[in-house]
Amino acid sequence: MSKLRAHCFSLSVDGFGAGPNQTRENPLGAGGEALHEWFFPTRTFKQMTGEAGGTTGIDEEFAVRGFHNIGAWILGRNMFGPIRGDWPDDAWKGWWGDNPPYHVPVFVLTHHARPSISMAGGTTFHFVTDGIHSALRQAREAAAGKDVRVGGGVSTIQQYLRERLIDELHFAIAPILLGSGESMFGGIDLVKLGYRCAEHVTTPNAMHLLLRKVS
Amino acid sequence: MSKLRAHCFSLSVDGFGAGPNQTRENPLGAGGEALHEWFFPTRTFKQMTGEAGGTTGIDEEFAVRGFHNIGAWILGRNMFGPIRGDWPDDAWKGWWGDNPPYHVPVFVLTHHARPSISMAGGTTFHFVTDGIHSALRQAREAAAGKDVRVGGGVSTIQQYLRERLIDELHFAIAPILLGSGESMFGGIDLVKLGYRCAEHVTTPNAMHLLLRKVS
Repeated sequence: MSKLRAHCFSLSVDGFGAGPNQTRENPLGAGGEALHEWFFPTRTFKQMTGEAGGTTGIDEEFAVRGFHNIGAWILGRNMFGPIRGDWPDDAWKGWWGDNPPYHVPVFVLTHHARPSISMAGGTTFHFVTDGIHSALRQAREAAAGKDVRVGGGVSTIQQYLRERLIDELHFAIAPILLGSGESMFGGIDLVKLGYRCAEHVTTPNAMHLLLRKVS
Repeated sequence: MSKLRAHCFSLSVDGFGAGPNQTRENPLGAGGEALHEWFFPTRTFKQMTGEAGGTTGIDEEFAVRGFHNIGAWILGRNMFGPIRGDWPDDAWKGWWGDNPPYHVPVFVLTHHARPSISMAGGTTFHFVTDGIHSALRQAREAAAGKDVRVGGGVSTIQQYLRERLIDELHFAIAPILLGSGESMFGGIDLVKLGYRCAEHVTTPNAMHLLLRKVS
């Protein structure tokens, strides 16, 4: 059975998945890049950015798991880009250049319709205007039996959690404070929703937790 | 200069310093004991409970730091006991038996006056009804040049943080979810208040962060 999974979702100790004041220049918000310090040295990240080398320890293992058996992605619009409201034109094609690191169909949640975009490397961006359930249904179909990964941001993850649609969720807690930004745990009770910590391991850079829906 | 410090303040990954439904039988709330799994094996905790042995690694080092150069404590009333409202009598003398693990004057914040209580081992509980500033002033005087430790709970720590009175704060992030309870980061922006992460280290049991007020 195809699962809906979230991986490598980095949070500050005070529970923010992005810092305040997100802009085109600073898509992760003030201080937000530090959330991903555990990820940047990994072999997986290096490969994504066309570099050789990279670490091969526990942080890398979690990075690898995030790409294993994924047949489609779902992204919130703000993870796709900085544009709000109507699309002014078709120029914006994501943060990731011509060859985005997905290599499968990617369903972008938005209130504003737009034609699909085919990118190099097998990534196609589809824009879904009729809600998270529709996006999941389309993504599952595109994934053809593989799992679907929901990328983010916080609001998108929360919407799927509130509907108990996420089966597995990997948080990486970074040893930083952000103070404000996108709060993951505000107004959501993961225990009540049936999630439990199934695995945890710490590295010098992060505390990794794998949550599973158990009820 | 005498500092105000908080130490060994354990939080779940979702930011709770205690679980929901605190009772006399379950003072840390549902699931709350698991917050302190990193602390229970330490030599410091074993000594507090009259046992021999205990671990001596990084978790223990953080436990030890929490007791170093402390001349007085401040506790919120709910950390002192489960009774709310007026004291029915003088029977309740804290959770810790005849010889509490403080061994110095302890100032308990409450709205309900009560005579001081001298316990074995040098602990005296004083009840402060005129607010956090008065408690700190009295604790500093009692500490006679040593530092003051604010124990908790969450509400007490937040009150002192909002007034920027805490100089140093050690959080131990436990690899658990509590879902609900006493939220440490709800409605408080530690970065805006001038706190930064000065040290961090992970162990198999916890992510330790030492915050300092920098501005």
